[in-house]
Amino acid sequence: MLHILLLLLPLLLSISNASVNDFCVADLNGPDGPSGYPCKPPTKVTTHDFVYAGLAASGNTTNIINAAVTPAFVAQFPGLNGLGLSAARLDIASGGVIPLHTHPGASELLIVTQGRVTAGFITSDNSVYVKTLSKGELFILPQGLLHFQLGYGKRKAVAYAVFSSSSPGLQILDFALFASNFSSSLITQTTFLDPEQVKKLKSVLGGSG
Amino acid sequence: MLHILLLLLPLLLSISNASVNDFCVADLNGPDGPSGYPCKPPTKVTTHDFVYAGLAASGNTTNIINAAVTPAFVAQFPGLNGLGLSAARLDIASGGVIPLHTHPGASELLIVTQGRVTAGFITSDNSVYVKTLSKGELFILPQGLLHFQLGYGKRKAVAYAVFSSSSPGLQILDFALFASNFSSSLITQTTFLDPEQVKKLKSVLGGSG
Amino acid sequence: MLHILLLLLPLLLSISNASVNDFCVADLNGPDGPSGYPCKPPTKVTTHDFVYAGLAASGNTTNIINAAVTPAFVAQFPGLNGLGLSAARLDIASGGVIPLHTHPGASELLIVTQGRVTAGFITSDNSVYVKTLSKGELFILPQGLLHFQLGYGKRKAVAYAVFSSSSPGLQILDFALFASNFSSSLITQTTFLDPEQVKKLKSVLGGSG
Amino acid sequence: MLHILLLLLPLLLSISNASVNDFCVADLNGPDGPSGYPCKPPTKVTTHDFVYAGLAASGNTTNIINAAVTPAFVAQFPGLNGLGLSAARLDIASGGVIPLHTHPGASELLIVTQGRVTAGFITSDNSVYVKTLSKGELFILPQGLLHFQLGYGKRKAVAYAVFSSSSPGLQILDFALFASNFSSSLITQTTFLDPEQVKKLKSVLGGSG
Amino acid sequence: MLHILLLLLPLLLSISNASVNDFCVADLNGPDGPSGYPCKPPTKVTTHDFVYAGLAASGNTTNIINAAVTPAFVAQFPGLNGLGLSAARLDIASGGVIPLHTHPGASELLIVTQGRVTAGFITSDNSVYVKTLSKGELFILPQGLLHFQLGYGKRKAVAYAVFSSSSPGLQILDFALFASNFSSSLITQTTFLDPEQVKKLKSVLGGSG
Amino acid sequence: MLHILLLLLPLLLSISNASVNDFCVADLNGPDGPSGYPCKPPTKVTTHDFVYAGLAASGNTTNIINAAVTPAFVAQFPGLNGLGLSAARLDIASGGVIPLHTHPGASELLIVTQGRVTAGFITSDNSVYVKTLSKGELFILPQGLLHFQLGYGKRKAVAYAVFSSSSPGLQILDFALFASNFSSSLITQTTFLDPEQVKKLKSVLGGSG
Repeated sequence: MLHILLLLLPLLLSISNASVNDFCVADLNGPDGPSGYPCKPPTKVTTHDFVYAGLAASGNTTNIINAAVTPAFVAQFPGLNGLGLSAARLDIASGGVIPLHTHPGASELLIVTQGRVTAGFITSDNSVYVKTLSKGELFILPQGLLHFQLGYGKRKAVAYAVFSSSSPGLQILDFALFASNFSSSLITQTTFLDPEQVKKLKSVLGGSG
Repeated sequence: MLHILLLLLPLLLSISNASVNDFCVADLNGPDGPSGYPCKPPTKVTTHDFVYAGLAASGNTTNIINAAVTPAFVAQFPGLNGLGLSAARLDIASGGVIPLHTHPGASELLIVTQGRVTAGFITSDNSVYVKTLSKGELFILPQGLLHFQLGYGKRKAVAYAVFSSSSPGLQILDFALFASNFSSSLITQTTFLDPEQVKKLKSVLGGSG
Repeated sequence: MLHILLLLLPLLLSISNASVNDFCVADLNGPDGPSGYPCKPPTKVTTHDFVYAGLAASGNTTNIINAAVTPAFVAQFPGLNGLGLSAARLDIASGGVIPLHTHPGASELLIVTQGRVTAGFITSDNSVYVKTLSKGELFILPQGLLHFQLGYGKRKAVAYAVFSSSSPGLQILDFALFASNFSSSLITQTTFLDPEQVKKLKSVLGGSG
Repeated sequence: MLHILLLLLPLLLSISNASVNDFCVADLNGPDGPSGYPCKPPTKVTTHDFVYAGLAASGNTTNIINAAVTPAFVAQFPGLNGLGLSAARLDIASGGVIPLHTHPGASELLIVTQGRVTAGFITSDNSVYVKTLSKGELFILPQGLLHFQLGYGKRKAVAYAVFSSSSPGLQILDFALFASNFSSSLITQTTFLDPEQVKKLKSVLGGSG
Repeated sequence: MLHILLLLLPLLLSISNASVNDFCVADLNGPDGPSGYPCKPPTKVTTHDFVYAGLAASGNTTNIINAAVTPAFVAQFPGLNGLGLSAARLDIASGGVIPLHTHPGASELLIVTQGRVTAGFITSDNSVYVKTLSKGELFILPQGLLHFQLGYGKRKAVAYAVFSSSSPGLQILDFALFASNFSSSLITQTTFLDPEQVKKLKSVLGGSG
Repeated sequence: MLHILLLLLPLLLSISNASVNDFCVADLNGPDGPSGYPCKPPTKVTTHDFVYAGLAASGNTTNIINAAVTPAFVAQFPGLNGLGLSAARLDIASGGVIPLHTHPGASELLIVTQGRVTAGFITSDNSVYVKTLSKGELFILPQGLLHFQLGYGKRKAVAYAVFSSSSPGLQILDFALFASNFSSSLITQTTFLDPEQVKKLKSVLGGSG
């Protein structure tokens, strides 16, 4: 048997040269590029790199929106690098809301795992698709479109949002407008909102300019 | 006000011409192509096309593997077409197992939502990564590699597997070998399994040849 | 010479079999799919299919925004199908504005060809990048982010926006919110805008719900 | 045993729903699209669809170039559809030449299997890379660049060119210029070739205009 | 109000972790890779990185071709990195010509903004598509095919060429043949041009070999 | 003539700025990323980088499988980096076998160049496609599916496998199961193989656990 094993070694060796790039765990210290981060050396990769526990605990919903978005993007979960997938956990307390937002670089598949969630999106031709989802139901939100999630009923809801990119981005409309330094003058000109409305929301969300 | 609205109409009209292709709900009756199915006409699309309830109920685990895989691929959930995402629900009863398998066309992100699951995968250089996951933990399984999921402990487990393609494929090793018409002679030559072993598993799984 | 030509014929013939798919002019009557429209038969393709004159004339800016967006997407210019490019002409009269909007499926390269244009975009981390561009200057707007264009000064401005997709989509924030059937209740919950503000803009833009 | 088999049936059935799109054999009668041809119905696919024998025989090199290019692109070998690969056989008799050409949509990997071949390509910065290859040697030709293959020595050479697309295209410089209806006036203006040279080659290759 | 703002902070913080990769401005000092350059650190990115003024001035057309091509590829305009777009300005004086060339890695959309331009391309099956374009007209040139632009009439023409890649490449036929070290012997063998013709053009364009 | 040449210089200079990224030869010392390795500086690239001679010699088939797989992936042939192609040479002596395996990241085009080879693959729906190929015949194996190659007849066979990725990966079923540290307990649970069978093959192939 030993003899056979030794005969096999040349094959084993030639094949080990070819064994690269099944995965590319992100080295977050390296500079990223258009397709993601450089790979951590395979010899330093362990099972730990493929596991993420950061979505196991509830997000803190004691805030103005009674909700929390906890991301598991490549910056949090380096094993996702280059694999075209990421996730986020949504916790929505009674009356909670994930405000209108987009993911500029990904579609989203929403999976409700507790309670009920009213979700919706709006398309380029201004059609609105809204549905109240129960536990176990899926909702697909095409790439880059404005969408939202609301708690439905009094029970706390939990959902997982899964994305078609390891770095989907997240642009929350109210934050983009009213928590940034986007000048009030430009906001009113490009949205037709009244100056008083802009001033009021900037004071809540901390925007300047 | 009416006057202003009328002035706006030309803009509205020119923009409506541009409003296509935010999404492409599959017309499953059409011939598919390398990038998916043809699109259902947008005028026939309703909210229902973006929702899938087929994963809400438990799969039937009264079978030889004490487990069930319920897919929500584009063939079940046409709204996924072209969006690079799909899902499956895994129900694993006590002692249950999702046997060794691959998804030839996608990476998988596993989200455990009930109980505990031992999952693992093997890479091209024959490294094995195995982890017992608790509720809320994520595991990423790179594209095309052999992997498995096992129930851990006595409690029934539920997990969602999410894929980086709307049509990830699913090749179960035992079914490919022993539930197909792959001839016993070819199996023994290409796997080094003993003929008796092949015969035994073919008789269980129904393979011919 | 004739003799040589005849000898060459077999090569010519075998090569003609290989001559497909340099381009795929859209057959807009066919059902589109995730990667675009089916191809018009090559024998019916003429030079006309690769030319589009629809952006040569000024858009009509006599409207509420004193501006016009004229698209040359695949639906207007079928030769673009599958080639990852499209364009639009922006005409901005004095005081004109292209309101805040996104292209869900493409990045945009803006080229100012007349007058001056103030353009800007906001990123996922709520940074704002704004620049007043003169004739001949370029501005790059990354995929899916909220952005706008404003006329600067009294002179009419013209710019071409070029996109990294033949079907980039166009979601205008005000139209999505206030010209759709997005219910006022959902708008106020997901944007924190005051009900009066929502009512006012809906009455201008024609939204229902 | 029969009992166990029956218990397994539900799993088998639910999995058969998910079994699509491992491949997409081209239905060449359907209209192609940007990503390829529509798929032949899986039930009509046989082993024959995955095999191509058209490169087994030598191409006819009794012609002006003493060489032949025999393509196995998707139009000849429908099983390649959507899989990002195709091939061609090069037969080069003594003194034979595959004239300067490009593949607009693919890189090429050249594998010499008989005799010797001098191959070369030119890059955007006008660098020239030329090598005389022996049997078994590989040469990689990056996408879209001008390149050529010449027989070296007196022995007939055979090589396989493999492409990174199922429809790489093939633009032969001399044919594009002198076997087309590209007008002599435009040729001389855009290439600086002398009118006599253009006239001479058009008379050999059959160009008009 | 301050109280509400403080409650919001946890959400703001968790979201800032997720805010990466909306864009990837090239760090041109880093080594590039198959998908582009490494990203400049986001903290060092300013509005300036998204603007390019290098196409605002006319190119110098006092040269042998009475024309100029001024590129705005990623090497000149780092903000384009990874976004699938770039541009070039074409200045064509009376009698000017952009000689026959290809872009090995991109399709081109041509926009004429001054004067008239005769543009054309040749396909794999040796079809020629030529059109004289007026101001404001668009012409689409599919990837990798030989094409040219000529001034039409006495007036100077200006056009923008936009590409479906941030690094489209540019291979000018005459330069590849006659301004390189491509040996005269190889040129005559692979193009059938007469040695005298080759010698003449090499002496003009500076080729060696 | 010299005068004309000098006039041309400005054009030559502006164009040299644009000449990047026709290719990206791998710098194997750099960290790789999801799309491949960083590029070797173009000034250090020579013809040698585009040539690979490592498949010219026969692989050593004096081993347990009477066959050899010699890879020319990016790790062996850096010029392939980013170009979507790679290759391997298969040497199959009489009675030789390339055991059941997958390439997780690529489709394979098999070209038989000597002798006869029986090749086959199994799909997600457990269909088996098997064919004995003669010299010059092609077989296409869709991405990620289990497949094998066997010598047919007494004559030694040689074939080239070409892949749609520069780093296709190679997972050999028997090595993944029996030459790794995949525990015998997990193997029997996830494959239904008998413990004795597992023990026997582990002792041959050197697996632990």
